[in-house]
Amino acid sequence: MYINEAFKLAQMTDGQTGRNPAVGCIIVRDGAIIGIGAHLKEGSSHAEVQALAMAGDARGATLYCTLEPCSHYGQTPPCTEAVVEAGISRVVFAARDTSLDNTGIAYMEAHGIEVSHEPHDDITEFYAPFFQAKKDSACYVTVKLAATLDGKLADDSDSSKWLTNADSRTDVHKLRHTMDGVLVGRRTYELDQPKLDARHVSGKKPAKIIISRSGDVKLHAADIDSEQRIIIITSRELETTAEVIVTDDLSPGHITKLLYKHGIRRLLVEGGSSVITAFIEHDCFDEVVLYYAPKLLGGTERNRFYHTEEKELSALKQLELKSVDVFQHDVKLTYRKGQNDVHRNY
Amino acid sequence: MYINEAFKLAQMTDGQTGRNPAVGCIIVRDGAIIGIGAHLKEGSSHAEVQALAMAGDARGATLYCTLEPCSHYGQTPPCTEAVVEAGISRVVFAARDTSLDNTGIAYMEAHGIEVSHEPHDDITEFYAPFFQAKKDSACYVTVKLAATLDGKLADDSDSSKWLTNADSRTDVHKLRHTMDGVLVGRRTYELDQPKLDARHVSGKKPAKIIISRSGDVKLHAADIDSEQRIIIITSRELETTAEVIVTDDLSPGHITKLLYKHGIRRLLVEGGSSVITAFIEHDCFDEVVLYYAPKLLGGTERNRFYHTEEKELSALKQLELKSVDVFQHDVKLTYRKGQNDVHRNY
Repeated sequence: MYINEAFKLAQMTDGQTGRNPAVGCIIVRDGAIIGIGAHLKEGSSHAEVQALAMAGDARGATLYCTLEPCSHYGQTPPCTEAVVEAGISRVVFAARDTSLDNTGIAYMEAHGIEVSHEPHDDITEFYAPFFQAKKDSACYVTVKLAATLDGKLADDSDSSKWLTNADSRTDVHKLRHTMDGVLVGRRTYELDQPKLDARHVSGKKPAKIIISRSGDVKLHAADIDSEQRIIIITSRELETTAEVIVTDDLSPGHITKLLYKHGIRRLLVEGGSSVITAFIEHDCFDEVVLYYAPKLLGGTERNRFYHTEEKELSALKQLELKSVDVFQHDVKLTYRKGQNDVHRNY
Repeated sequence: MYINEAFKLAQMTDGQTGRNPAVGCIIVRDGAIIGIGAHLKEGSSHAEVQALAMAGDARGATLYCTLEPCSHYGQTPPCTEAVVEAGISRVVFAARDTSLDNTGIAYMEAHGIEVSHEPHDDITEFYAPFFQAKKDSACYVTVKLAATLDGKLADDSDSSKWLTNADSRTDVHKLRHTMDGVLVGRRTYELDQPKLDARHVSGKKPAKIIISRSGDVKLHAADIDSEQRIIIITSRELETTAEVIVTDDLSPGHITKLLYKHGIRRLLVEGGSSVITAFIEHDCFDEVVLYYAPKLLGGTERNRFYHTEEKELSALKQLELKSVDVFQHDVKLTYRKGQNDVHRNY
């Protein structure tokens, strides 16, 4: 029960902890919660330390934590030392921290604490992007698109206004709030003037990332000296108020490694069709989120979200359905990358 | 309660009554069902007559029927006379028969029967295709397709095997079972050798309809002298064992009128992309059923299910979401035709 409460705290702060994972912690004694903590921001106190501070005297209590307490000196001192010092008698955690050579369990046990690892499916899934990004030193990539049922992001005159409804767009803002950065191509940036923020849900402004080989990006007025982080990835040095990442290799794989170094752990790729096609074609995605408007448009290849040279079935990208949501007449389908096992069940 | 039971009977026989609607009937006396009837086949007894026959003595009973009892001499005598003769004291029906100039209610009331019209949303929806087809003297058209998420029916070499999974294909067979005819283009017919039946659910074989202006259709061996009805729509006379409908006007709208005259009330349009595009483009559809495989394929325009000349948003086809079904990793989205009201809710 208490681990679910701790998970709620982690979910609350998901999206605001930078390269760190969101963590929730609950301290319980005699059947009552005596401390609540969450990691709020990269560089600030960990969840365990926050919860211990709230508890004051936590001797003999049980500490529930979504993630294994850290044992290393990073931006803050190790949590395991604080746990031992506070006189905690039992620690329950849901996810192992596979990204660090953690000696915390042994340390706590050596100090007489009973330590239990109780895996929890939802929490395991919650941390998967974090561990994967850290392991690969590359962003966890979600490709998001809003299209007609026949796969068009916009019409043949590049108009795409109001394809999906207000509820879908609010949901996109929730999605953005969990992201560190939102990436678009130069043309989409200049045509759509996208805010790429989470204002519908009073959420944050993830970094706005624009790819342009030429660097010939005309920043919108609001993006000059903006408090939102603006990053341009380009092949040449630029005079601009935006951050500039200069590289000759603008392939999706390389970009996700560069962005990770610049603090972007979770990346949302929003468009247009050339950028989306490049990320899909290079297998540089972990999840795909499709918002289908209840519309059939037709038209030419232009603004078809995934268009390439001639393709055969053997080259298709297999996905796994993760969830289905309905917003009035719009449908949101969320997929994770799957195994390329073409069905042969006939 | 009893009207729901009658509806179950109508649903059971849906798809086997040709140009007639499926109808269910329950006769109740003293809190017990004394007669059950359903219209089984075009030309055979109506549901009310079947139920009265089962009841034997139905004096003083209440008759529940999904559709208003008919008062005209068609292929069978009017049900209202049978109801009066049997001494039924009360009739409850859910849907009015707007397709006929029905005088049955007045007739029954004149003979002392209490008649109640109790509308029922699901039953109203159930009969909508029937009434619409009859009113328009044209098929009720469902466009069905199985595609990748980016809208491809097959790859650029025309291979489309196993895009969707076995559960989806079984569902297609259920859908076909409710249809009078299944229509494909000549190329799809010759390439895919489609059986276009409902064998996965031990269902029926709807008429197989092939469009070919030239009439140059090479029938598959199994379709020569087949017990399944095979119809070729073409612009010239043919020597073939199939039924031939000759017309110079092969537009979707005209085809649906011709087919209605040939006993096809509900038509499933299955492909390929040129046929699907033509029916969508001419607004000649009532429902669209999409089975999305969890796959991204890319490739060229070829086999994109809806491709036209240049199009602008103002020309898009607006749909309304009717239902969402999930078959493992496949998603089935069912739409009905909607109003062309582009969202302007920003």
